[in-house]
Amino acid sequence: MWKGYATLGQMSVNTRPSDVQHPPLRQDPIMDHTTFRDFAKAMADYIADYLENIRDRRVLPTVQPGYLRPLIPNDAPESAEPWTDVMKDIERVIMPGVTHWHSPRFHAYFPTANSYPAIVADMLSDAIACIGFTWIASPACTELEVVMLDWLGKLLDLPKEFLACTGGKGGGVIQGTASEATLVALLGAKSKMLAEMKEKKPNADDYDIVSKLVAYASEQAHSSVQRAGLLGGVQFRLIPTDEKHKMQAAPLREAIRKDKEAGLIPFYVVVTLGTTSSCAFDNLADIGPVCREENVWLHIDAAYAGSAFICPEYRHLMEGVEHADSFNFNPHKWLLVTFDCSAMWLKDPSWIVNAFNVDPLYLKHDMQGSAPDYRHWQIPLGRRFRSLKLWFVLRLYGAENLRAHIRKQIGLAHEFEQMVLADSRFELAADVIMALVCFRLKTSNEDNEFLLKMINGNGKIHLVPSKINGTYFLRMAVCSRYTESHDIQGSWREIQAMADRLEKEKAKN
Amino acid sequence: MWKGYATLGQMSVNTRPSDVQHPPLRQDPIMDHTTFRDFAKAMADYIADYLENIRDRRVLPTVQPGYLRPLIPNDAPESAEPWTDVMKDIERVIMPGVTHWHSPRFHAYFPTANSYPAIVADMLSDAIACIGFTWIASPACTELEVVMLDWLGKLLDLPKEFLACTGGKGGGVIQGTASEATLVALLGAKSKMLAEMKEKKPNADDYDIVSKLVAYASEQAHSSVQRAGLLGGVQFRLIPTDEKHKMQAAPLREAIRKDKEAGLIPFYVVVTLGTTSSCAFDNLADIGPVCREENVWLHIDAAYAGSAFICPEYRHLMEGVEHADSFNFNPHKWLLVTFDCSAMWLKDPSWIVNAFNVDPLYLKHDMQGSAPDYRHWQIPLGRRFRSLKLWFVLRLYGAENLRAHIRKQIGLAHEFEQMVLADSRFELAADVIMALVCFRLKTSNEDNEFLLKMINGNGKIHLVPSKINGTYFLRMAVCSRYTESHDIQGSWREIQAMADRLEKEKAKN
Repeated sequence: MWKGYATLGQMSVNTRPSDVQHPPLRQDPIMDHTTFRDFAKAMADYIADYLENIRDRRVLPTVQPGYLRPLIPNDAPESAEPWTDVMKDIERVIMPGVTHWHSPRFHAYFPTANSYPAIVADMLSDAIACIGFTWIASPACTELEVVMLDWLGKLLDLPKEFLACTGGKGGGVIQGTASEATLVALLGAKSKMLAEMKEKKPNADDYDIVSKLVAYASEQAHSSVQRAGLLGGVQFRLIPTDEKHKMQAAPLREAIRKDKEAGLIPFYVVVTLGTTSSCAFDNLADIGPVCREENVWLHIDAAYAGSAFICPEYRHLMEGVEHADSFNFNPHKWLLVTFDCSAMWLKDPSWIVNAFNVDPLYLKHDMQGSAPDYRHWQIPLGRRFRSLKLWFVLRLYGAENLRAHIRKQIGLAHEFEQMVLADSRFELAADVIMALVCFRLKTSNEDNEFLLKMINGNGKIHLVPSKINGTYFLRMAVCSRYTESHDIQGSWREIQAMADRLEKEKAKN
Repeated sequence: MWKGYATLGQMSVNTRPSDVQHPPLRQDPIMDHTTFRDFAKAMADYIADYLENIRDRRVLPTVQPGYLRPLIPNDAPESAEPWTDVMKDIERVIMPGVTHWHSPRFHAYFPTANSYPAIVADMLSDAIACIGFTWIASPACTELEVVMLDWLGKLLDLPKEFLACTGGKGGGVIQGTASEATLVALLGAKSKMLAEMKEKKPNADDYDIVSKLVAYASEQAHSSVQRAGLLGGVQFRLIPTDEKHKMQAAPLREAIRKDKEAGLIPFYVVVTLGTTSSCAFDNLADIGPVCREENVWLHIDAAYAGSAFICPEYRHLMEGVEHADSFNFNPHKWLLVTFDCSAMWLKDPSWIVNAFNVDPLYLKHDMQGSAPDYRHWQIPLGRRFRSLKLWFVLRLYGAENLRAHIRKQIGLAHEFEQMVLADSRFELAADVIMALVCFRLKTSNEDNEFLLKMINGNGKIHLVPSKINGTYFLRMAVCSRYTESHDIQGSWREIQAMADRLEKEKAKN
């Protein structure tokens, strides 16, 4: 018969340890604590050297597929090797095949974060190496995450319904990626709509309901949004965008109306703030009320651009956020927190917590319910102590320097924009709102494709393309935290040089 | 018109860089390279001190839910703080709330790995900080993973159809967790069965087919297996186990027969090798042929016990593995590779690659098809350079020391088993096969529940319980790589002391 912790606590205080001898901890036979100190410090120096001199490396590697296998043995070694041999192999085996995402001349995709505070925080996370699936499995892991998501939510000025500190149902969680956040929100929306439908018609068949569910997003939404539909087994309707590549309320409302007329069940809308193709912002201010009227779950995917909302001057782009059920952005993209750290807030996590709750005895604990058990908020069971990265970055930069980082990179994008506009061969393919410039030669798609191949083939800078409504263009994202004005100028000179060469090649033929 | 890389390569060689000035990289205004060296080295020393003296800490913290919030400010700081302040706060804020998973007296759940080579490898991964979603996004990230999964697969002596080096379709991938591997395999099996059904009946409705799909696993399978069914939107049938808690072929075959008679479509079987409750091994040798006869996807979840297959003497437990379509185990549990690193092999990844392939232009590249684009093999899009951890651990330990680690921990479990058997108050609740001992007082469930509360309340060692067929028992897993014989003896003395106290308490009442 359980008599409560109070009694036990008392017993514990009055009890002598049942084993008082503390023999010294045996050294790891392979790598003792002293060797680790040397090894880790050598790696710290290697890392500082790498990042300090990253500009000297070609952004894109020249290797061909299959390059690595011949460089290392066919099998794992039978005996331990010295760590100095492994250190030597980094330059021989790994670096020739690395695409240097933190070079100031890397302009592909969107940025992925890299900062010294985050690297050191991750060392600590790896040393504690707890698996924070429940509160008791490591209270600090859960509790720091709750508070860091509050810190971060307040920095963005998110509605208070999303914050745990306001004492309501809402709160934040760190997901691995925005893809997972989109899927988790979709599954929550699915279980909510299923529950509502079953309440109306208790005898309805689950599969029949699911077959009628429809989700909506802009045709410019990230590939992972459609993928969430495939994974979740529901139909996804992609809404055509306006001439600025934004989803507007009217076509969404029309699509919902048609689907309802056809007997289908609209249940989930993803609004993208900052699309991957061109950094367009869906019209959240108008779409939000439509979602409320139509009783569909509104999820906001601000994976890249969300970091900019720490600056008040960009918050007008998230007008209407109060209508959202869930909001997600990636500090691991633009807020200097190394991957993975995707911040997600939910107004009512219970739809997700209860939908997939399988609760075996070996994971139960006495404090259940008094703090979140984050295993219920995510797809995987295990989770790292990732909030340490947020804590270190937020404290070691401070809000003002994070805002300065965002503003500087947007400033650099506008500087690049002016250079594009000053060269009459080029035009912009989209408005420059964040630190992404979409541009193209005014001539054919083929010319632009060729230009990009020349640029990436030369390997000094790296860009990726996109295409909207048949128009192919190049994307220049300001990515590295080391990027300065002279880098942007250098990247533009490289692009111009390749355009010159393209003209000459064309003239020859 | 694209003229091939050959031409471009030549042009590139003959071209002078368009910008030859290389101004020195500006220091990060917040934490420069020199400060990072100091900070990272201080953290390396902190980590070595922490792990060297981890025995001096109480395994379970004494904090109550909500302990952390009052210890830190309500908001992120506006200005940058010195790193020395953050270092000081680790002991003040974090450590009081940490459950020390790497204490030699931590015996809960299953182990999670922690090793010095893995910590240092992760530093490098965080510094390179590439996102390896495609080959071109960082060829080294993809290629090292392909080869490391071959190294590892060969260490386990997996069938050659799972290895990339044999030139077939098969290969391995690092997933975040076993939960994700189970879900990915389920989604692959689902798309395979859908394709087969549509080939037979081209006009069949997808939702109608999905509503008939049935997956199977042992009733002792991990909670994440059932959860995969919930997430994947399919029925899951849990098969009763024999007296040793193993799934046998006969009841599975019978369940499949009944379901087929009822017009349902069996499509997926999960065999567990080493259940979480009691480390039972399903009868793979008999179940494998049933899966082949019935044409259902066979997935093997060896999350914990899979690491032991690097030792030939345990491979009889995976007899029948040649029948599997996918195989998964967690080096991040028992093979000294810090979380996350869940190794998964597939004989034919195309069912997963093709099922969820959304392929936007910004992720396309010229080398597509000549190396795996791992984004198609997993739920999230982004992925870290996790194979570095495998490379460092396999080289810096060597196969012989990894086998010694497994054998030593199993030996310690048998030592504990003997101590349990020597105390007439206790009995075993399951066979000891790996490094887990399931045991209980011979008296009531209530006594055992009370015993466990006393043990965990005292906080010097940490165990979690389980319950099978109404019988509650305690699980003692050998977790820390620092655990020695005297630790196991100390843990047993603590358990005996608590049992003594329980007897006294009962005598009083």
